[in-house]
Amino acid sequence: MRIVALAGGIGGARFLRGLQAAAPEAEITVVGNTGDDISLFGLRVCPDLDTVMYTLGGGINEEQGWGRTDETFTVKEELAAYGVGPGWFGLGDRDFATHIVRTQMLAAGYKLSSVTEALCDRWKPGVRLIPMTDDQVETHVVVDDPEHGRRAIHFQEWWVRLRASLPALSIAPVGADEAKPAPGVLKAIEEADVVLFPPSNPVVSIGTILAIPGIREAVAANTVVGVSPIIGGAPVRGMADACLTAIGVETSAKAVAEHYGLGLLDGWLVDEADGDVRVEGIEVRSRPLLMSDPEATAAIARAALDLALELKKEAP
Amino acid sequence: MRIVALAGGIGGARFLRGLQAAAPEAEITVVGNTGDDISLFGLRVCPDLDTVMYTLGGGINEEQGWGRTDETFTVKEELAAYGVGPGWFGLGDRDFATHIVRTQMLAAGYKLSSVTEALCDRWKPGVRLIPMTDDQVETHVVVDDPEHGRRAIHFQEWWVRLRASLPALSIAPVGADEAKPAPGVLKAIEEADVVLFPPSNPVVSIGTILAIPGIREAVAANTVVGVSPIIGGAPVRGMADACLTAIGVETSAKAVAEHYGLGLLDGWLVDEADGDVRVEGIEVRSRPLLMSDPEATAAIARAALDLALELKKEAP
Repeated sequence: MRIVALAGGIGGARFLRGLQAAAPEAEITVVGNTGDDISLFGLRVCPDLDTVMYTLGGGINEEQGWGRTDETFTVKEELAAYGVGPGWFGLGDRDFATHIVRTQMLAAGYKLSSVTEALCDRWKPGVRLIPMTDDQVETHVVVDDPEHGRRAIHFQEWWVRLRASLPALSIAPVGADEAKPAPGVLKAIEEADVVLFPPSNPVVSIGTILAIPGIREAVAANTVVGVSPIIGGAPVRGMADACLTAIGVETSAKAVAEHYGLGLLDGWLVDEADGDVRVEGIEVRSRPLLMSDPEATAAIARAALDLALELKKEAP
Repeated sequence: MRIVALAGGIGGARFLRGLQAAAPEAEITVVGNTGDDISLFGLRVCPDLDTVMYTLGGGINEEQGWGRTDETFTVKEELAAYGVGPGWFGLGDRDFATHIVRTQMLAAGYKLSSVTEALCDRWKPGVRLIPMTDDQVETHVVVDDPEHGRRAIHFQEWWVRLRASLPALSIAPVGADEAKPAPGVLKAIEEADVVLFPPSNPVVSIGTILAIPGIREAVAANTVVGVSPIIGGAPVRGMADACLTAIGVETSAKAVAEHYGLGLLDGWLVDEADGDVRVEGIEVRSRPLLMSDPEATAAIARAALDLALELKKEAP
């Protein structure tokens, strides 16, 4: 069985680990969000790709969900001693090595998809991890900055430095219009038996991937089941509500499904806490969605997969 | 009093610390060798400049003479886990930060001399440290490689990886012909009361600096005293003998002075172990030259300075 999943960072990566446990024989292709990517200290950092790679490859800091286990911060402290920032982005020494390798390969002319493949040679995540695009797409957030007035800032600055404390007036994946899906992305989606949306951020993770011309259409042509990242009217982790508000979508399991829309989503898993969710034209199933441990996560992934296979069979 | 010293790495840096102790009121300008510079992992590494900066700024690993104190090697280990080398060059985590800052500034268009000044803002070495040139000069060594035949390799590969185990057929500072002295170098030499050559490698450290068009002439016009890096017919540290052999110079205090030559060197300090050294036209003084501790080193620096001031007075 061939599965494609679109994934952001922590939530997506944990869901994918559950999916691997639920369907150990499946060939899984992960299309990763790169809208969060940022250049720091002259190095190219791809937080979501790395979170997926480290999580599935056994190198993740389990407690925080991002970054490496047994991490130290010597390089960052030394950079700060030189007065070189930003200090708000947590880059550890082990993590630095990943960015150094990536930056060196990019400078040598390799595409991000090739670089990602090379990095995965070490981590062996057990999935094929492809960035959504080899082109540069950066999610920018427009805020009313009390000091600098209205301006667009990098998503990471809003998310990590400001912790989304300033309301996002708009959120846009800058460069997406002109970007092309990375080699293999469209083919994997076309050849997949089903496409899954993990409980990643519907705006800045899955929404960004879908903004790359061609990807939404390819996904829509397949059977798609999503897992709601909203439980009991609130994001399970992260600040997805701040992102949803920015695009005028209510923070509810129902509103997110409607936002993805008919024609894209065939099935939608919501949590029991959200009551009787109904969305016209989308098959909604209710079950516990808290990824509290590996077993619970595998059961959620299994449920998403089962629903997708069921809907696929019914499809004309 | 204004002093200019040309310096390589470890020996030069230790001498300079002695010079600071011997002449605490002097304004010291250090012209640093950059022929050893190398790009590793996409980062620009300047071993000699950093050794001077760390030594005088209190950050050096005293025992080994290069690199940072309390150093860890996490980044390097992680790079090795990605299969990315070279593993033979010892870059520690603290050191990496220096190279990251330097590389980022160079990429932003700053010259190496400005970058060095910015790095020294942190270290406050108490001297003005200027690279010999802002242009790229790389010392290459021609060897008969048993596997690959005759070829030119980077100095660091010969020095660090091969530990000079293959005889150097020739040593050349590639790019020196076209290089210009960095801003401030010639002026500092012209305005200096005296110029000192620490016991740095006469071929690949001081020789490289002198190979930058204009520097030799400026130095020769001033009063110059050197400290022999050869004691008892052997280099005190490093493998200067392998370098001297490559350029056809005997490994002796006398031969090195003759190599620098009349018209460049006015005075020359040799060790008592080398007996009665006489060089036509150069004032040779004999004294203990082992930089065994800070006091001994300061006394050597004081002797070099005193000789220089004495010769300066005598000059027509």
